[in-house]
Amino acid sequence: MAESSRSKPLTRENVQKAHELIKQYVHLTPVLTCTTIDSVASTPRSPEALKGTQWEGQTPAKPKFRFFFKCENYQKIGAFKARGAFHALTQLSDEELARGVVTHSSGNHAQALALAARTKGITAHIVMPTISTPSKIAGTKGYGANVLFSGSTSEEREAVVVDVIKKTGAILVPPYDHPDIILGQGTMALELEQQAKDLLAMSHISVNRDQKQTLDAVIAPLGGGGMLSGVATALQGTGIRVFGAEPSFEGANDGQLGLAAGKRIPSVKTLTIADGLRTPVGEIPWIVISDKSKVKGVYSVTEEHIKAAMKLVLERMKVFVEPSAVVGLAVCMFDEDFRRIAEREGGEGGWNMGVVLSGGNTTVEAIGKLFQTSTAQAERAEGVVGKDGEKVAENVAG
Amino acid sequence: MAESSRSKPLTRENVQKAHELIKQYVHLTPVLTCTTIDSVASTPRSPEALKGTQWEGQTPAKPKFRFFFKCENYQKIGAFKARGAFHALTQLSDEELARGVVTHSSGNHAQALALAARTKGITAHIVMPTISTPSKIAGTKGYGANVLFSGSTSEEREAVVVDVIKKTGAILVPPYDHPDIILGQGTMALELEQQAKDLLAMSHISVNRDQKQTLDAVIAPLGGGGMLSGVATALQGTGIRVFGAEPSFEGANDGQLGLAAGKRIPSVKTLTIADGLRTPVGEIPWIVISDKSKVKGVYSVTEEHIKAAMKLVLERMKVFVEPSAVVGLAVCMFDEDFRRIAEREGGEGGWNMGVVLSGGNTTVEAIGKLFQTSTAQAERAEGVVGKDGEKVAENVAG
Repeated sequence: MAESSRSKPLTRENVQKAHELIKQYVHLTPVLTCTTIDSVASTPRSPEALKGTQWEGQTPAKPKFRFFFKCENYQKIGAFKARGAFHALTQLSDEELARGVVTHSSGNHAQALALAARTKGITAHIVMPTISTPSKIAGTKGYGANVLFSGSTSEEREAVVVDVIKKTGAILVPPYDHPDIILGQGTMALELEQQAKDLLAMSHISVNRDQKQTLDAVIAPLGGGGMLSGVATALQGTGIRVFGAEPSFEGANDGQLGLAAGKRIPSVKTLTIADGLRTPVGEIPWIVISDKSKVKGVYSVTEEHIKAAMKLVLERMKVFVEPSAVVGLAVCMFDEDFRRIAEREGGEGGWNMGVVLSGGNTTVEAIGKLFQTSTAQAERAEGVVGKDGEKVAENVAG
Repeated sequence: MAESSRSKPLTRENVQKAHELIKQYVHLTPVLTCTTIDSVASTPRSPEALKGTQWEGQTPAKPKFRFFFKCENYQKIGAFKARGAFHALTQLSDEELARGVVTHSSGNHAQALALAARTKGITAHIVMPTISTPSKIAGTKGYGANVLFSGSTSEEREAVVVDVIKKTGAILVPPYDHPDIILGQGTMALELEQQAKDLLAMSHISVNRDQKQTLDAVIAPLGGGGMLSGVATALQGTGIRVFGAEPSFEGANDGQLGLAAGKRIPSVKTLTIADGLRTPVGEIPWIVISDKSKVKGVYSVTEEHIKAAMKLVLERMKVFVEPSAVVGLAVCMFDEDFRRIAEREGGEGGWNMGVVLSGGNTTVEAIGKLFQTSTAQAERAEGVVGKDGEKVAENVAG
């Protein structure tokens, strides 16, 4: 792939340029709102719910949220990764494109790169572990990729990638640790900013005329960090606060822990249900994420909180998402530190809060398994939801 | 409720009037498209898949569908029933409204009537069986309804309704067997007709410029028949064909069977997973549905076909629907008689096919149960889905 040193600097202007380049290839995904979820998250948690947490005994925070959900589950391949992959290819010369591209991934990035390559009429070599599920292999092949198999350790996979590069001259396109990818992912934030503005300008949403007509903050999931650093880059200078959200299970909150320690954590081993967020933050994303002027903070949530947020989005918004997609909403609902900041800074009017729903690539069987093991907790979560089932889903057309 | 004899006749013009009356209260729900589902349903079924069916040995049909999904799962209360309930209340005099309204239902109609009554500032009495699930009772109470309990037989429920009417003078608003309800439900078809036209006018959908720029047909689920008869009434004279879809399990296809016998079937006892479609067709809907000039035909599908269609809508379109919502799509995918008609009448260009997704009121636990018992069949269904995961979801704004 284009060497990082050759890439454009990480600026809002360069995200805007990236958007011009990719918008013919990717969907302008809708921004949805949901009064039920606003109302649930704007209700203080009960003192009982805080028992056994670090907030036990504190007065529950009273933030007010009007959420704007950026639905990247409706993006091509079912996740935001299409943005970065398409942008990366626009940065290659014709000579480079002719050599083809290569990556090792069994997830959304593999499918995104395969789709982008097919669209450009070039070859994508995707290295996948032999043990990958047949449906993922078939899915990637379905986009016309040349799938190669390797052992499952990262050394084994990288050896196959090196071999492909040696034989074909293919350009490596990494999943997140590259400026071209980051600039591509950031494009979602430009859209969200404008779509929220359009929705707020519609009278039936901004009942209160004194209300701010722009976003106050955006929260996005943090795995490798391509998306969060892209969003923060896109929103620089806008005054919109940017936050990251991680699962806390088995140290998946390496971003949060790294920020506390003042040092990036280079490896993570976790089996959080938010399987898109099991990777450590990459080196280039880290530069952006550890800059307080760009990312205000990173928060983490438990597996049960992720499930409760997911149940809410599925059942009340009727939007099909994967667990990784809802960690931002879970932070808004359950992290008292975050909620206290929103209460203090949002004041009476509350916050217009952008929440990135990053993808929807899961199955009914996986959902069944997820919610079958904890019916009691799911019911408790339902209690949190409240009684008022009224729901608004608004769509913004381009 | 307003006596049927006092109600407006079932004409397209009266559906248009109903739309003017209710559009301030209900959502203009989005119409979505999905190239993956188009491609799956436009692929002939394999001769093996027809084994053991009434089509065994026949050449599989080769229809072409471009689907336009009317997403009534994004309607208020999560289902289309809000339309009819709001319309019914607009037809009552101030004196009648002051007396309040009453119905017996444990499903979407109860919540729809409760919401409409609250919006109008009047009382809704909802009679529910004592054995109703607590979440349904809480949901209905959440809309401010006065919930009354009864035994679970229809006689016991009706006795409580009669008692309420005697004591309060409340007006009965039935769930489907009334012209005002039918005219209200029909409003979705007016929107769908226009939204599909708008989408077809966008160049990237109508690649073929010679293609028809309007809908060819619409298919809607058939339970009590309020929706199907409303849709057929709304589309009279437009040239758009209207079809109904039912589950076949345990005789839930009473509409189809009744049409074959030339006589409405007044009672049904089925536990189909499409629980919104367990009721027999009502008397007034039957008049419309049995009129060939209004409804071209009613088709039915198995439980497994419903599950396969549901899996596709959830996982590929990323839209959260209940089983009853997908019977129309299931007919398009699996009923060879219907597919043969679409092939013959649609010809080379195929059909622009409106499909009503009627609601999304289910839970993650219910989905888990549904797909846990038949992993093998779900996987078979996934095989049907094909390899190409590309997906388009377009939104139509008002």
